[in-house]
Amino acid sequence: MIPPDHPRYRSLLARERLAACARDGVVTPEGLAAHGRGEAFDYLLGERTTESALLAERIAAAMLRTARSPVISVNGNTAALAADSIAGLQAASRARVEVNLFHRTEERVEKITRLLEFAGVEVLTGKAEPLLPLSHSRALCLREGIFSADTVLVPLEDGDRCAALVSLGKQVIVIDLNPLSRTARTATLTVVDELTRALPNITRAFRGMGPGEGERLMRSPGNSFFLKAALDEMRGNLEHALD
Amino acid sequence: MIPPDHPRYRSLLARERLAACARDGVVTPEGLAAHGRGEAFDYLLGERTTESALLAERIAAAMLRTARSPVISVNGNTAALAADSIAGLQAASRARVEVNLFHRTEERVEKITRLLEFAGVEVLTGKAEPLLPLSHSRALCLREGIFSADTVLVPLEDGDRCAALVSLGKQVIVIDLNPLSRTARTATLTVVDELTRALPNITRAFRGMGPGEGERLMRSPGNSFFLKAALDEMRGNLEHALD
Repeated sequence: MIPPDHPRYRSLLARERLAACARDGVVTPEGLAAHGRGEAFDYLLGERTTESALLAERIAAAMLRTARSPVISVNGNTAALAADSIAGLQAASRARVEVNLFHRTEERVEKITRLLEFAGVEVLTGKAEPLLPLSHSRALCLREGIFSADTVLVPLEDGDRCAALVSLGKQVIVIDLNPLSRTARTATLTVVDELTRALPNITRAFRGMGPGEGERLMRSPGNSFFLKAALDEMRGNLEHALD
Repeated sequence: MIPPDHPRYRSLLARERLAACARDGVVTPEGLAAHGRGEAFDYLLGERTTESALLAERIAAAMLRTARSPVISVNGNTAALAADSIAGLQAASRARVEVNLFHRTEERVEKITRLLEFAGVEVLTGKAEPLLPLSHSRALCLREGIFSADTVLVPLEDGDRCAALVSLGKQVIVIDLNPLSRTARTATLTVVDELTRALPNITRAFRGMGPGEGERLMRSPGNSFFLKAALDEMRGNLEHALD
């Protein structure tokens, strides 16, 4: 048991939860390594939502609000860490939720669907078709889900799929702690924040958005501003890290 | 298959190898996450041995050379990634090799011992006793191994055990890509480099050491110099990362 007053309680709890889900097959070994990379970048960010990330989260909420058909794409790590927060964002935004996996097997899709449904998420189901410009099982998605979406929120996406979604003309919002990843550089908007902080912030911004605020936010700085801001934070934190 | 001309070939190969060893039980889920953290820091270092890390590797070689009873402590990740390099360093240095695990079960100790022996490592065996000032199974080590050592090389160690070894008066050399980790701050000497680059460099330095060079190297800067140098590298790389 991790004591709740441990300074890194949330981070250690997330790691334990993912390890448990790896034993269940919800999370893959590759997913665990990816989580570790995220932890390192979050550590450099100070394990907190920066001011620029909070602005990105408000813009993400505005993008979901103005979308005709928003979809949230959920993978194993996201389901393991944030099923409740996905339910909360879906309740606020009415976005569809689709399970979309890098290491796809029908068994994993089913397990993750059950995990999400248990948290109150309404999960889109149906027959996945090879509709994305990617090879093998990575091309699979639902016609009424990701394929028809104009705006896709993909927490923890890989670079290839992010690029494929952008190439189909979609607005792609990613949540990625590495501002240098190909995903972060390719997305329409990158939220450089940890998943379980980012999702509730997006939900809160969605619910609290005043009239006209969405339009104002959509004229905010573009993706590269947010990547640069995150890098500047990390550099600043490294500078005084050993003091 | 990862194409050998991929710019991040070594990193991706290591990740694949660890994932395979996780499926075998040699590597734990926690070990995979720890590897991911290392990958992120290595990415910030430019995935190369820096000048300061190479100096630390030469000092590590000098420390192993002057030790009366050097021991290399090997965990699951180290065995999975670098069994061959451990064999090479043992052949050069005649250091004893002991399997010492954070998530210790007799089954894992045996699996890792077999994996090391297959690579040509002579592994110290015997009955582990609770000799380290740590709780539960983490206190276990061999009396003729880590307990009697004056110098211990512990690639990829955790902070508590590193502190325990230092508190017993041992010279502790760690290989850790995170210059801010408790391990890195606690060790006698931290090599901030990736394991499969660091170990062959230490072996090469060991074999090539001229007369009197070891003594000169031992008067080199202390641990905090190497941590600061690594942080400076990372900051510099972050500064131009988006150019």
